[in-house]
Amino acid sequence: MTGRVTADPCLISDLQSAFHPKAVAVVGVSRDDVNPPPGYTGLRIFRQFREEGFEGRLYPINPRATVIDDVPAFPSISAVPERLDLVIITIPARGVPQVLEDCIANGAVNVHICTAGFGETGEAEGKAIEDRVREIVRRGHLRVVGPNSMGYHVPASRMKMYAGVQLTAGPVAFVSQSGGHAQNFTGHGPALGIGFSKVISYGNALAMDGTDFLEYLAGDPETRIICVYLEGVKDGHRLVQLARDIGRTKPLIVWKGGLTDFGARAAVTHTASIAGDDRLWRAFFRQTGAVQVGSIEEMADAAMTFLRLKPISRSRVAVIGGGGGGNVATGDICAQEGVSVPPLAGETRRSLLSLLPPVNQSIVNPIDGPAALYNPALLGEVLGALTASPDLDAVVLHVATALNLVTTAESRALLKSCISGFGARGSGKPVVVAVEGLERTPADVEDIVREMRDAGITTYSSLRAACRSLKRVADYYSFQ
Amino acid sequence: MTGRVTADPCLISDLQSAFHPKAVAVVGVSRDDVNPPPGYTGLRIFRQFREEGFEGRLYPINPRATVIDDVPAFPSISAVPERLDLVIITIPARGVPQVLEDCIANGAVNVHICTAGFGETGEAEGKAIEDRVREIVRRGHLRVVGPNSMGYHVPASRMKMYAGVQLTAGPVAFVSQSGGHAQNFTGHGPALGIGFSKVISYGNALAMDGTDFLEYLAGDPETRIICVYLEGVKDGHRLVQLARDIGRTKPLIVWKGGLTDFGARAAVTHTASIAGDDRLWRAFFRQTGAVQVGSIEEMADAAMTFLRLKPISRSRVAVIGGGGGGNVATGDICAQEGVSVPPLAGETRRSLLSLLPPVNQSIVNPIDGPAALYNPALLGEVLGALTASPDLDAVVLHVATALNLVTTAESRALLKSCISGFGARGSGKPVVVAVEGLERTPADVEDIVREMRDAGITTYSSLRAACRSLKRVADYYSFQ
Repeated sequence: MTGRVTADPCLISDLQSAFHPKAVAVVGVSRDDVNPPPGYTGLRIFRQFREEGFEGRLYPINPRATVIDDVPAFPSISAVPERLDLVIITIPARGVPQVLEDCIANGAVNVHICTAGFGETGEAEGKAIEDRVREIVRRGHLRVVGPNSMGYHVPASRMKMYAGVQLTAGPVAFVSQSGGHAQNFTGHGPALGIGFSKVISYGNALAMDGTDFLEYLAGDPETRIICVYLEGVKDGHRLVQLARDIGRTKPLIVWKGGLTDFGARAAVTHTASIAGDDRLWRAFFRQTGAVQVGSIEEMADAAMTFLRLKPISRSRVAVIGGGGGGNVATGDICAQEGVSVPPLAGETRRSLLSLLPPVNQSIVNPIDGPAALYNPALLGEVLGALTASPDLDAVVLHVATALNLVTTAESRALLKSCISGFGARGSGKPVVVAVEGLERTPADVEDIVREMRDAGITTYSSLRAACRSLKRVADYYSFQ
Repeated sequence: MTGRVTADPCLISDLQSAFHPKAVAVVGVSRDDVNPPPGYTGLRIFRQFREEGFEGRLYPINPRATVIDDVPAFPSISAVPERLDLVIITIPARGVPQVLEDCIANGAVNVHICTAGFGETGEAEGKAIEDRVREIVRRGHLRVVGPNSMGYHVPASRMKMYAGVQLTAGPVAFVSQSGGHAQNFTGHGPALGIGFSKVISYGNALAMDGTDFLEYLAGDPETRIICVYLEGVKDGHRLVQLARDIGRTKPLIVWKGGLTDFGARAAVTHTASIAGDDRLWRAFFRQTGAVQVGSIEEMADAAMTFLRLKPISRSRVAVIGGGGGGNVATGDICAQEGVSVPPLAGETRRSLLSLLPPVNQSIVNPIDGPAALYNPALLGEVLGALTASPDLDAVVLHVATALNLVTTAESRALLKSCISGFGARGSGKPVVVAVEGLERTPADVEDIVREMRDAGITTYSSLRAACRSLKRVADYYSFQ
């Protein structure tokens, strides 16, 4: 149980060519772009690759076309004049077995089956096709991702699977059993400064499973943080071993879908997955130190926190907020999220008392300090005193309703310069910002959050999100 | 324990004149509007009343002015030529005792002490002033709200305490120990269709407590729903009795702040309240059937649900959503919030199978039905089949990432007409909408939510909020 999982060198080199392919075929590229069917068609994928500047050779496959968008089309994989690094199949399920036979003949190993309509339908026909596919895959030693999946989205290789998503390369990998969640994360991540090494949507996991991709990513030098969404898993023991190994060098952030009865039932219909027992999954997280999240928003916040902040191994925070009732809520939220808000004592308290007047300023913790928040120079001193405290691991600036600090561009600029300046000369302890407030519209909050993030300040869209993320990161490092 | 609390007729008539006053004095109206101090000054309150068209007589009190904004000013309460229905005190704490003596001389009973700097500071001086104030209040039988509070905000009387908030009269009362929370709720409520009968911020509760205001509101014909934020309470037994009585005729929605250790510590600094034991409060909610919420957002969602929907006594829902992974999350969220998502059976399932094609549409529950959501006519039939089911109490339309139904104004108009039309001819079972989605910006989501709400459709900004609210409302009605 303590030994490392040895990666299969064949798997590694096969997937390497899938993520950085020189020759790709898309099976099912329609010529008709006037009335394309809705959803992810072969034509859309083919065009997205081209528009993003994919540098490999692209082969559109269509038995009734010779040219598509000025690119020579081929009637089948068998007609393609070279060995393919990746075949993407978008035709209906019943045509898939023949394409796989053609892949074997071509020598192609990597196959992405985008098509749905297999085991997840619960219908006899879908299950029968799935059985045939499984037999061919085994016989041909194919590396199949899917079916019912979005496959490989690799920004560095200009392989774009999700429309409306900006290709942003970076050190975060996402292995997702759901194409929708993968699309959300790739869409949401860049605003938080998250770029992606590989985004893998593997759907029904007919052949390769989440664990196969984890085996690859564990040793991938392009990946520093691994995020996973999964519903079921075939080999739980292997997953535990991999998760433990990965955790030693890279944070592993896991959203397990279907932990409740209703969620588990939906998972069967989605990817024909058996979602498994809640208790087993609790044991998994306890044993591996993997970081558990419950949504894409939480996953993105956790990944952002790992990317931006220096490691902390405890989560004792000072919260600078505003408003008495707001501070009661702050105390409750911190406690609920497992973050400690220790009273200020000794030198820290003395420093703050000398900096802030006592009336209408509460020099406990949470700190109700409007004076500090209206005055960036003073704020710098307050942050200095707080981060110097041996009893604190991080400072959260809670920019909520009572504070007009961020209502003008000028005051926001001061705040940003103060925090950035502090970060440069400070103790290195995290100083983060949480922006929320019912008085403001969501659009206002969004603007402020974006501005802060663009200035390099780690910013969350709620205090709860900030606490939750700090706690998760501290738990990870203290487990390691 | 089963007898009703008999309201004190004196309290009722005194508060009646405070909420609908004919003569109001504001003590501490500065002439200097060039450099007004920050925060809620007497001048600001005075002007807000006038700008909103307060119809009673207004007396600005300032010893160094004869006229303020063309209104005759008076040096003190003693100089006012008539008996005052309400005196609002905004001068510093040490001047408050003399003003109270003047109130007794005037015959004024209702006094709002806005000023902070009393017991909540933890300083000896503030506590000493508070003791003097308490003695005068007792001797003069004054009805004091505060100190350290925003007092009475009454839209129907054009009494506006919160800047930037639109005065919206309606059947919801809010009794809040926190002025900040009261400001948030009054600011946030109107967008959800919530108007207010009385908004009461009572701060340190030096004389009158939350229970006094509840006693009034229990019999107030202008109030149909009562919301409460409290940190501490003086007479827990009385609160239990009142809550139980109120619940028989009006939903009572309570946010108890300071339920955790860190929150409780902040409550002491905020309003000098002893927040009390978590177990006692759990017993309170169990015994009274009061609706527990944990934030202003949750309070507003619950109030909106009570206002808009017909009573339900169970929370078995069908969720129409989109995307397989999304439906797993939906199942998990419903289960976590205590809402049941029963499998569709019998006639309901047969109807849906005849309406929706099975591939890429999951006819279980949650229902992955893009076809229905792209086609409002079909959606109407689907809603008809679902609301006819004896196994379902409500339908939630989850407009999330996978659905492009709401991306154009035209499709949103179709959706609205479909839901509104269905509501008119349907079974009366709630059909609500939850709008969210990472693909969209918060500003987009906000726009769509506003449009839906303006069309009279009960709309939440997340599925979790929708489930939580439906569960709370069903629990309330099943308790009664």
